[in-house]
Amino acid sequence: MTRLYDRVAVIGLGLIASSLIHAMRRADLAGTITGYDASALHMAQAREDGLCDMLADSAAAAVQDADLVMLCVPVGAMGGVAEEIGPHLRPGATVSDVGSVKRSVIDAVAPHLPPDVTFIPGHPMAGTEYSGPRAGFAELFDGRWCLLLPPEGCDPQALRQLRALWTGMGATVEEMEPDHHDLVCAVISHAPHLIAYTMVGVADDLRRVTDQEVIKFSAAGFRDFTRIAASDPTMWRDVFLNNKDATLEILGRFTEELFALQRAIRTGDGDMLHDYFTRTRAIRKGIIEAGQDTAAPDFGRAKTRPGE
Amino acid sequence: MTRLYDRVAVIGLGLIASSLIHAMRRADLAGTITGYDASALHMAQAREDGLCDMLADSAAAAVQDADLVMLCVPVGAMGGVAEEIGPHLRPGATVSDVGSVKRSVIDAVAPHLPPDVTFIPGHPMAGTEYSGPRAGFAELFDGRWCLLLPPEGCDPQALRQLRALWTGMGATVEEMEPDHHDLVCAVISHAPHLIAYTMVGVADDLRRVTDQEVIKFSAAGFRDFTRIAASDPTMWRDVFLNNKDATLEILGRFTEELFALQRAIRTGDGDMLHDYFTRTRAIRKGIIEAGQDTAAPDFGRAKTRPGE
Ligand SMILES: NC(=O)c1ccc[n+]([C@@H]2O[C@H](COP(=O)([O-])OP(=O)(O)OC[C@H]3O[C@@H](n4cnc5c(N)ncnc54)[C@H](OP(=O)(O)O)[C@@H]3O)[C@@H](O)[C@H]2O)c1
Ligand SMILES: NC(=O)c1ccc[n+]([C@@H]2O[C@H](COP(=O)([O-])OP(=O)(O)OC[C@H]3O[C@@H](n4cnc5c(N)ncnc54)[C@H](OP(=O)(O)O)[C@@H]3O)[C@@H](O)[C@H]2O)c1
Repeated sequence: MTRLYDRVAVIGLGLIASSLIHAMRRADLAGTITGYDASALHMAQAREDGLCDMLADSAAAAVQDADLVMLCVPVGAMGGVAEEIGPHLRPGATVSDVGSVKRSVIDAVAPHLPPDVTFIPGHPMAGTEYSGPRAGFAELFDGRWCLLLPPEGCDPQALRQLRALWTGMGATVEEMEPDHHDLVCAVISHAPHLIAYTMVGVADDLRRVTDQEVIKFSAAGFRDFTRIAASDPTMWRDVFLNNKDATLEILGRFTEELFALQRAIRTGDGDMLHDYFTRTRAIRKGIIEAGQDTAAPDFGRAKTRPGE
Repeated sequence: MTRLYDRVAVIGLGLIASSLIHAMRRADLAGTITGYDASALHMAQAREDGLCDMLADSAAAAVQDADLVMLCVPVGAMGGVAEEIGPHLRPGATVSDVGSVKRSVIDAVAPHLPPDVTFIPGHPMAGTEYSGPRAGFAELFDGRWCLLLPPEGCDPQALRQLRALWTGMGATVEEMEPDHHDLVCAVISHAPHLIAYTMVGVADDLRRVTDQEVIKFSAAGFRDFTRIAASDPTMWRDVFLNNKDATLEILGRFTEELFALQRAIRTGDGDMLHDYFTRTRAIRKGIIEAGQDTAAPDFGRAKTRPGE
């Protein structure tokens, strides 16, 4: 693999950043990698693990010579970081990010960047429920999508290089428009996360069913919800606050449909329920055919089938 | 393992029934196993696979000599089967079931059983999103809970024997009271399933986000919902219609909390969101500590990490 960038700066050294770094190293895509994180603990861990070639004392210091700057902080922190690094960016540098929301990040970041810098927002569609510099691994992006959202008139060479970086890290790149991105993600990720958080919160609240019972008997269904609802609180707070409109729109539709199903349960309309539950099967089939999940059954437990 | 029952009849030959049969065989817990299913296809598959020792032409014929009768049909079909088999049961026989709802099954089944028969309702807390006689496997119940709901004054010898059967099939038995069972299951299974069905339905409905996009980019979160929402429509229709009150109660609480979170998003109350998302993490931790799920991260994809 050709080296694509001589100097890369990574701001925010969490799950996505550390995966990025491991993935760039695996394919030798970057020369020197300089990191910075606002958390003293994460800086100490990064130092101990030798995660980066260099650690800087500030975001501004980290970016000064960089050909590529990757913003890997929570969505709500992107604007502040951009404001800080703006004056220190090298002319001709590319700035990108990995935030889960795009419109608000673009609005917060773009105004702070000098005109001789190319900003190409991005969003890798991969993650786990863990966070911090020790959660990352080189294979996180393998076989996953990375969405890039180049603005109109984006420098084609800079875009080609960033696409090559993501491809080199194992991802498949697709371009998308920011508002559409935010709506798609509200459907497939943001609303489902809020719903899972809510359901786990209800279980936790319910006095007549003890936590012990919830934990002990948690089967497929709820167990998957608890996994989703274990995701990083800061990251998700920022996602919801920054993708407010799309998330609220999808939640509105969700509530409407939920009411219709509740009414069917209350009135005993079994045909409506059966039809609804039959229709939703088709999407699952599509996902398996598209290779986005395994068709192997979920056994509702840690152990897998012997022989697997 | 000691043989616990000489003759077992299994009515309904789907996922749970076929897993039961494989698990009984694995530990040699039963002598002759006779099966019956209302579906001609499932009967043909059972015959071809040699799933049972004998197949009967009716539920009534299947149960005549049985020491143990296991009702493995959808919850809504339990009453009809009980009515049919009631007059044909052997004195001293034990009748049990595996239905996911208990109060309505007890009300539907018990009146049809003669007094010289012991009825011990049950519910194994294990399953997959697949159905039919070919979905079953001997290990389904290994390390999982099976709830038994013996009525007051239940014959202790019959109860001991049924407990031994489930233990022999790999499960851990716990006794519970029917109404409490239905509430616990509404929280950990029934409400989450309805919510997942709803969210997948919303995605399917939304014209501005194509099915193709939903399928292509489906990440952790939505992907888990599609798996849950691929479960058998008949089974789940019956569950909701038969656990109406508890399900609607939990969905009511869920909607209330969801509204509170939506309000926090709308008003930008980040602290409320952050607190809520922090609280729900604790339950996940409990589930992993209780061995009900693996702590390994969910990679949002079919492939697992190399070396795993
Ligand atoms: N996790 C996923 O599934 C996923 C998937 C795709 C995209 N993303 C996006 O990727 C980004 C990073 O997420 P992540 O999962 O890697 O989170 P993470 O593991 O929590 O890492 C974020 C890191 O940034 C640090 N940080 C916060 N504010 C900062 C600032 N102003 N300057 C420098 N460092 C700062 C955090 O420190 P503290 O911990 O002390 O705050 C933390 O170390 C987010 O924008 C998220 O939306 C996440
Ligand atoms: N799947 C789970 O995750 C799970 C977990 C715990 C408990 N349970 C409970 O286990 C029971 C069976 O579920 P399952 O997952 O094994 O479903 P399944 O695979 O669909 O099997 C049910 C079988 O019963 C047949 N049947 C329906 N009505 C009948 C009747 N009146 N007489 C004889 N056979 C009849 C069905 O035929 P048709 O397909 O033609 O209707 C089907 O072959 C349900 O009560 C369910 O609530 C399920």
